[in-house]
Amino acid sequence: MNYDILDTTTTIVAPATAEGGAVMVVRLSGNNAIDIADKMFRGRKPLSSAKGYTLHYGRIVDTAENTIDDVVVALFRAPHSYTGENSVEISLHGSRHIVNTVLKLAIEHGARMATAGEFTRRAFLNGKMDLSRAEAVADVIASDSQWSHNIASTQMRGDYSTRLNSLRDELLRLCSLLELELDFSEEDVEFADRSELKNILDKVEQQINYLCSSFTLGNAIKNGVNVAIIGEPNVGKSTLLNRLVGDDCAMVSDIAGTTRDTIEATTVIDGICFRFVDTAGLRTTDNILEQMGIERTYRAINKAHIVLHITTADNPDFSNYPTEATPQTYIRVINKIDQTQPAECNDDVLHISAKRDMGIDKLRERMRSVVDTASIDSCNVVVSNMRHYEALTLAHEALSDAQHALDLNLSGDLISEDIRRIIHHLGEITGDITSDDILQSIFSKFCIGK
Amino acid sequence: MNYDILDTTTTIVAPATAEGGAVMVVRLSGNNAIDIADKMFRGRKPLSSAKGYTLHYGRIVDTAENTIDDVVVALFRAPHSYTGENSVEISLHGSRHIVNTVLKLAIEHGARMATAGEFTRRAFLNGKMDLSRAEAVADVIASDSQWSHNIASTQMRGDYSTRLNSLRDELLRLCSLLELELDFSEEDVEFADRSELKNILDKVEQQINYLCSSFTLGNAIKNGVNVAIIGEPNVGKSTLLNRLVGDDCAMVSDIAGTTRDTIEATTVIDGICFRFVDTAGLRTTDNILEQMGIERTYRAINKAHIVLHITTADNPDFSNYPTEATPQTYIRVINKIDQTQPAECNDDVLHISAKRDMGIDKLRERMRSVVDTASIDSCNVVVSNMRHYEALTLAHEALSDAQHALDLNLSGDLISEDIRRIIHHLGEITGDITSDDILQSIFSKFCIGK
Repeated sequence: MNYDILDTTTTIVAPATAEGGAVMVVRLSGNNAIDIADKMFRGRKPLSSAKGYTLHYGRIVDTAENTIDDVVVALFRAPHSYTGENSVEISLHGSRHIVNTVLKLAIEHGARMATAGEFTRRAFLNGKMDLSRAEAVADVIASDSQWSHNIASTQMRGDYSTRLNSLRDELLRLCSLLELELDFSEEDVEFADRSELKNILDKVEQQINYLCSSFTLGNAIKNGVNVAIIGEPNVGKSTLLNRLVGDDCAMVSDIAGTTRDTIEATTVIDGICFRFVDTAGLRTTDNILEQMGIERTYRAINKAHIVLHITTADNPDFSNYPTEATPQTYIRVINKIDQTQPAECNDDVLHISAKRDMGIDKLRERMRSVVDTASIDSCNVVVSNMRHYEALTLAHEALSDAQHALDLNLSGDLISEDIRRIIHHLGEITGDITSDDILQSIFSKFCIGK
Repeated sequence: MNYDILDTTTTIVAPATAEGGAVMVVRLSGNNAIDIADKMFRGRKPLSSAKGYTLHYGRIVDTAENTIDDVVVALFRAPHSYTGENSVEISLHGSRHIVNTVLKLAIEHGARMATAGEFTRRAFLNGKMDLSRAEAVADVIASDSQWSHNIASTQMRGDYSTRLNSLRDELLRLCSLLELELDFSEEDVEFADRSELKNILDKVEQQINYLCSSFTLGNAIKNGVNVAIIGEPNVGKSTLLNRLVGDDCAMVSDIAGTTRDTIEATTVIDGICFRFVDTAGLRTTDNILEQMGIERTYRAINKAHIVLHITTADNPDFSNYPTEATPQTYIRVINKIDQTQPAECNDDVLHISAKRDMGIDKLRERMRSVVDTASIDSCNVVVSNMRHYEALTLAHEALSDAQHALDLNLSGDLISEDIRRIIHHLGEITGDITSDDILQSIFSKFCIGK
């Protein structure tokens, strides 16, 4: 199916829920959504005569008036719907056969299957939400921990856009003042006070810096924190993994791949998802083949946010840790303290017994402290989207140019040009400035039915 | 979770949709459903002030008023809901994290998790549907072909119950006449004309016979038709299987089991699901071990509804077919007719080339004709439920007794007793007569949220 992505007039249809539950919902949206639904719905009265935000009990019938299912239909009238268009949501008994039949009927009556993200795309095009909010819808659906939900949900509700828009508004005000000076260029007046201008640019820079720096954190929150557990054989790595992951965990079924690391298991600690990455292990060896394995381990270590290096109390030797490796956080752990009291007494080194559940809470706390959610401002505004990060980086470059131009006391029109560039890049995030290509790339990552 | 199954007052909550879609729905039902929803819903006005069959846009908040999600709430007021109770359905962004948070909130506000089938159980207890209709809800959800959907859907909408109820009404009328005779027993009058009585019992017997005999068909429709493809090695069994199953088919991932047959693949032909069962193959051999394998094949053959016995055109020999085997339908097929023209010209034997797609349509027709959907009456009333079949069998026994008593010209009260037994067993199907144990066993087979 390769529809014209610019087609925003045909009524679209798709299942909005996954297969397998007691109930499934089929969603129709578009000018003719209500008429199409009426062709297959038999209730107390036609949907076309009903108000928006109402529910209707009835039957779905095929073209021969055979009943397909007893349903409840939710009716939304433009512009008061998710997409801003007329919309109908049909709650069916959760059977693939029924859903397929209803989709087929809707198509026979003039709808077409929606492409991935097309409902949200229409919501964006109809001004129901800006682009960063639309993007957050997919993140909200994918979020699997409290913090990833928090930041996606904040973005979806628009707190993030509000912040960006207030920056843009301030910059636009500056621009208009600077551009006013052009009209009076003969007279050499300054409508925009240069020191005020500098203050405002510094303030904007602070905000952009905060957002840029929040990306590392946002990325860790959104995608989870990768943890590599390393150590010589038999130090209790697996026992520790099982202990950390506990009963709560869904063991991730892994198809071993050569290109990406195998994720063994995930666990959520205080709202943050941690992903344990399998490494090839760690040995001191002169064997060339084994050294290749260790090189692979180095790479895994360098990709990990946290490395847990495990030794045991009877041989608490961390010296074989590869000095070339540069993980973001390196935590030394002495295991099996229930068997031997460790000699070393270094505050930096954690003492645990994975088997007896000793010191594990402290280890969890230490891992959790790596993700500094305390640094997130009270509004939960965090950048977690690569596209936004890139736009912010470009905005920051333009901002440095503007500051430089200001320092050199350049004319208002040159400064104004730089500020326009900042505004442009901020506008890319919220979708004030955008292209069909960008839209397609964004919405194709959505699931069907959203 | 082991709740008192007799508790029908606490408000229950459960996800009604499967995980993984764009949208998930959480369903609340019970006296306090609306109050509980109001404690976590923030919309334009409280739900408690709204009418039934209305939709409400708003936010779900936790106890600290943090927004969990933007939602649309569907409101149903007793008795106009699926369960007959106050009900609220919350449409959320399809994230497990959000759904879990909302379920937790609902429980904090006084709801409890629903057990499997508890919504439908309440619908039954509140008189919204009888038992056979309630049972059909689960069948509708599980149906994966058009005919299995048709019969489940007919049963769910009550055509089946209507038929049983009209039988019961007629029998009840007879009973009351017969029992009236008791009051006048001194006078030796007959209010119930014995020849009319006989006619009615014969009519009821016809109906019960039809329903009983429809069970084989109904079972095949509901659970699919088992097909065993047998034949010597290299006659093209796998090629034929691939050809029959085609691209449409979802290959069923099979974990080989010792107790049940391995289903290799399924395909739907004209609304009926066919399941291909793996057999151990067929060889003529004196080897004892191989003979054991063949015994296993016999058993598989006997369990199959259809046996496709494959030979090739250059050796069209069906003589090694086990005479002890008694499948319901035995179809002889000569394969590879593209290589050799078969000598034999028996109308009963089908000639095909699995490789070149010759004669396959005819084979499909032949297989499909085994399921005699033409015999199903226009109302689609077919028994597909073992519990119903058992009750019908018992009703039939009682009916024979009544007919016998009538033939012997026994007194009205004796005949009436037999008729009461028929009524009782028919009532078991619709749930007029039932026990908590039966209810629990029925509804425990449902999914959560229905």
